[in-house]
Amino acid sequence: MGAVVGVPTLLYLPFCSFNIASPLPNVIYGFTGFKIVELHKAEQGRTDGWNRRRYTGAMKFCSHCGSDAVSFAIPEGDDRPRHLCGGCGAIHYINPRVIVGSLPYLGDRVLLCKRAIEPRLGLWTLPAGFMENGETSEEGALRESWEEARANIRVDDLYTIYDIPHINQVYLMYRGELTDTNFGPGPESLEVELFHEEEIPWEEIAFPIMRETLEHYFSDRREGRFPLHRGVIHRKL
Amino acid sequence: MGAVVGVPTLLYLPFCSFNIASPLPNVIYGFTGFKIVELHKAEQGRTDGWNRRRYTGAMKFCSHCGSDAVSFAIPEGDDRPRHLCGGCGAIHYINPRVIVGSLPYLGDRVLLCKRAIEPRLGLWTLPAGFMENGETSEEGALRESWEEARANIRVDDLYTIYDIPHINQVYLMYRGELTDTNFGPGPESLEVELFHEEEIPWEEIAFPIMRETLEHYFSDRREGRFPLHRGVIHRKL
Repeated sequence: MGAVVGVPTLLYLPFCSFNIASPLPNVIYGFTGFKIVELHKAEQGRTDGWNRRRYTGAMKFCSHCGSDAVSFAIPEGDDRPRHLCGGCGAIHYINPRVIVGSLPYLGDRVLLCKRAIEPRLGLWTLPAGFMENGETSEEGALRESWEEARANIRVDDLYTIYDIPHINQVYLMYRGELTDTNFGPGPESLEVELFHEEEIPWEEIAFPIMRETLEHYFSDRREGRFPLHRGVIHRKL
Repeated sequence: MGAVVGVPTLLYLPFCSFNIASPLPNVIYGFTGFKIVELHKAEQGRTDGWNRRRYTGAMKFCSHCGSDAVSFAIPEGDDRPRHLCGGCGAIHYINPRVIVGSLPYLGDRVLLCKRAIEPRLGLWTLPAGFMENGETSEEGALRESWEEARANIRVDDLYTIYDIPHINQVYLMYRGELTDTNFGPGPESLEVELFHEEEIPWEEIAFPIMRETLEHYFSDRREGRFPLHRGVIHRKL
């Protein structure tokens, strides 16, 4: 069962490190002795479900010893399946990733980027991407606003936090005023423009999380206050 | 240079999947053709610095093809070093992890757990641990409060967000009232107790992020309001 985990997942591998809609999970490492727990039918189904929904970035070889004896089962003392190396005993943990981004504004206009990369190539989004190691989430949001829109912003505050459990992502979006108008498309953008509320291409927004963040912003602008908004984006059924 | 990345890092591997202070990074996968960029001296030093500080969970073998030709260099078109497979062309991306937790309270008392595991074994902390795939951050906080303290809480709201860039972690702590007093130590806790402010063992709090979250809480209690607090924990110099 575990052996097949890695195979179909190759289809999901992104060709760009900034693919913010990638379903690939994080993988981390731990070592411990383990016994692969025999899975009865119920657990088997449960495990396969987890596999399909949450472990699409599964490994074929152990990254510590190179063994291909990587299975997918519940380690002793754990309560969910992990990728287990039968060669060296490594347990490979998979965790969600953080996407950091910003809502850059100037006066009553908001900056959007037309995506030059898949997914949703040609649709509009707020600048955002994978948080990198060694940076804070705010530093990451500033970095992404520069990389995607060559935009310089002064961060006001964290504005929206969204969980997207079916793709194992947490979004942290910061609200910030542009400090200049020298913005322009970075390598991942076709165009970068400022939009008044009535100009927003609502039917061409790349991701639900970006649409909801924009809706919160224009609503809050009318109220004159910008509280933190939390939300969960579920897979469309 | 790249070849030695994985070796010393084995020393850092945790023996417990709930080691919330683990410096291990996340690793994710992407495929693309790449050319390993020659590193001049400055980049070399920069890369080694990143390696020591941020890539302690580096891989020795490619998890996609099993090759041991894994180097650590800046891919063409990227701006920071990644783990690159010379065998199949995989680029292995490393990203921060999310720690989800809670501040469970009852009346004017707060629940703390005495850690039964390293690091900081025997010190007190709020229940928290790695966010798992397929759950929301709030679901993860509820799960951890049960796993570590057998505590059932009704979440009020997200309360503190802390970046800890030197260990590549983002903490999301939720504030919640205990719905009953049937709490008790889970496998990772030696004791679980409710503390009045004057009873908090300030000198025995396991992690700075927990100390700061507790300080915010008791201060906010006096004000009668609990706004979101953001913070950054930097490595002690």
